[in-house]
Amino acid sequence: MSLDDKAQKPHDRLAEALADDMAAVNELIRTRMASEHAPRIPEVTAHLVEAGGKRLRPMLTLAAARLCGYGGPYHVQLAATVEFIHTATLLHDDVVDESGQRRGRPTANLLWDNKSSVLVGDYLFARSFQLMTETNNMRVLEILANASATISEGEVLQLTAAQDLATDEGIYLKVVRGKTAALFSAATEVGGVIAGATEAQVQALYTYGDALGVAFQIVDDYLDYAGEAATIGKNTGDDFRERKLTMPVIKAVVCADAEERAFWSRVIEKGDQHEGDLATALAIMARHGTLKATRAEALAWAEKARAALRCLPAHPLRDMLDDLALYVVARIN
Amino acid sequence: MSLDDKAQKPHDRLAEALADDMAAVNELIRTRMASEHAPRIPEVTAHLVEAGGKRLRPMLTLAAARLCGYGGPYHVQLAATVEFIHTATLLHDDVVDESGQRRGRPTANLLWDNKSSVLVGDYLFARSFQLMTETNNMRVLEILANASATISEGEVLQLTAAQDLATDEGIYLKVVRGKTAALFSAATEVGGVIAGATEAQVQALYTYGDALGVAFQIVDDYLDYAGEAATIGKNTGDDFRERKLTMPVIKAVVCADAEERAFWSRVIEKGDQHEGDLATALAIMARHGTLKATRAEALAWAEKARAALRCLPAHPLRDMLDDLALYVVARIN
Repeated sequence: MSLDDKAQKPHDRLAEALADDMAAVNELIRTRMASEHAPRIPEVTAHLVEAGGKRLRPMLTLAAARLCGYGGPYHVQLAATVEFIHTATLLHDDVVDESGQRRGRPTANLLWDNKSSVLVGDYLFARSFQLMTETNNMRVLEILANASATISEGEVLQLTAAQDLATDEGIYLKVVRGKTAALFSAATEVGGVIAGATEAQVQALYTYGDALGVAFQIVDDYLDYAGEAATIGKNTGDDFRERKLTMPVIKAVVCADAEERAFWSRVIEKGDQHEGDLATALAIMARHGTLKATRAEALAWAEKARAALRCLPAHPLRDMLDDLALYVVARIN
Repeated sequence: MSLDDKAQKPHDRLAEALADDMAAVNELIRTRMASEHAPRIPEVTAHLVEAGGKRLRPMLTLAAARLCGYGGPYHVQLAATVEFIHTATLLHDDVVDESGQRRGRPTANLLWDNKSSVLVGDYLFARSFQLMTETNNMRVLEILANASATISEGEVLQLTAAQDLATDEGIYLKVVRGKTAALFSAATEVGGVIAGATEAQVQALYTYGDALGVAFQIVDDYLDYAGEAATIGKNTGDDFRERKLTMPVIKAVVCADAEERAFWSRVIEKGDQHEGDLATALAIMARHGTLKATRAEALAWAEKARAALRCLPAHPLRDMLDDLALYVVARIN
């Protein structure tokens, strides 16, 4: 990939526009993940933080604050807060999923142990909490507390909703918010709040982050059935094999006849899967047009995100956020 | 045990004096541990919360607020906050320790799975965080954020400090604060802060909770070597077998000659333990008087807790807190 191509990505343009702020965020993260007496903490954290995640969430906070004209110092605290919450949830997710790889490296629970992942995750939650209190702004605390509750509630829900054909799109959306959208929307909303934006602007920033996160996750779930391995970096059908109830399947279950219902019950609820079942699943989805409908929903959420931006001041960062919403669904266009 | 005996315990007298407040706390806990869509959350939480823990931490908060003359509603929020943090740490501890029993019942990680314990623990942390923001008091948020960081830092420290003969009393104290004293001191301190107590009173409440927690833990660690199975409800020598560096051993390592050091290195660092090693350990401790010295430290911390109370207004609750400090060390008198 040439440098020019790279410069086209909205994420990279955001990183360039916010370079000074991001340098401050990275410095703050480095300082605050330290622990004088428990070197295990920075070891585990650095393994993850320095693995080169995209730092999308802190950039959302910085962009939101800046495009609302913020000139104070606290957007840096909040951006670091959001990244700490994200890192803590990754550490706990890897324990929950018994994962072996994250960001192309062995997971912390594999390199150290589950204990370290649980406790260092807790430490990062506590650190994020210290960071946000430094802003002295009660409203951002409420927003981040609510997001934290939505995240963990969504994760517990996912534990019980998987393999259950009664899972509907309402529950799916809660799981999606827990996995992705709750922290995206909190990231953008606190940026607006700390900048003293109007209520309408704060609401618009929330809607943008929420819709961007939902679109992002639906695209992921769509590609798990419709994508090419080369595009999505993993094999199609992973969700099928793991018996996850994602949007394409939920839509297919709703309009299933008796025979199809028996099929879904066998492969998803009972987990009794044989060769050819994924092809059958895809054929059923094609018959009901559920992949097409899922794709349309992803595009609609991306448009919702873009529409929300219109309430915000004209600003180069606003344009980049608009491009980001387009980019999230570009993989399915 | 007769009812009269029971009434003698300071803990039970506190429960009686704070009965109305505790009823409100229990009701708030019941309401807030609910989750509309993820029934696994209240299932797991109820298993632990309703197992009949002593609710000592919320009572410390209520007592501190009341004896400083508080008449508002937020001590109830803070007491529930403290209990949620405690319950969350228990859920995560059981995963970390791979425990099978807690409060005489199978642990949640055994009844459900480690995933549920990790995620429901996270949910309770998030809920505690929502509860405390309702007080609209930035200082209590800072105190509880700092306590959360101390707790998880202490737990990580314990992972690495165990089996390491270089662990000194400074590190031991940090582990002890993480295990017990940090939440005790936060519980009493926020009670004073929400009541608008003077700085001196708030500091005294912090010192009381901290010293009470440290005394409590040292007594536990002392009895693990010096106690009778009937008194402590478990066998002596558990810490020895688990190669934990607690105060009696740390003091013995400091004054060990070459032969003793080789012994400690073999049994604690290498974990190469044989029959008779516990008796040898006890003989070495007796030679250096480390159990006696440990006992003296527990008594000194209890006295420190009692002394701090003198800065607080005369009040029946103050007398009960004084009795509580005596009661904590009564097992070693």
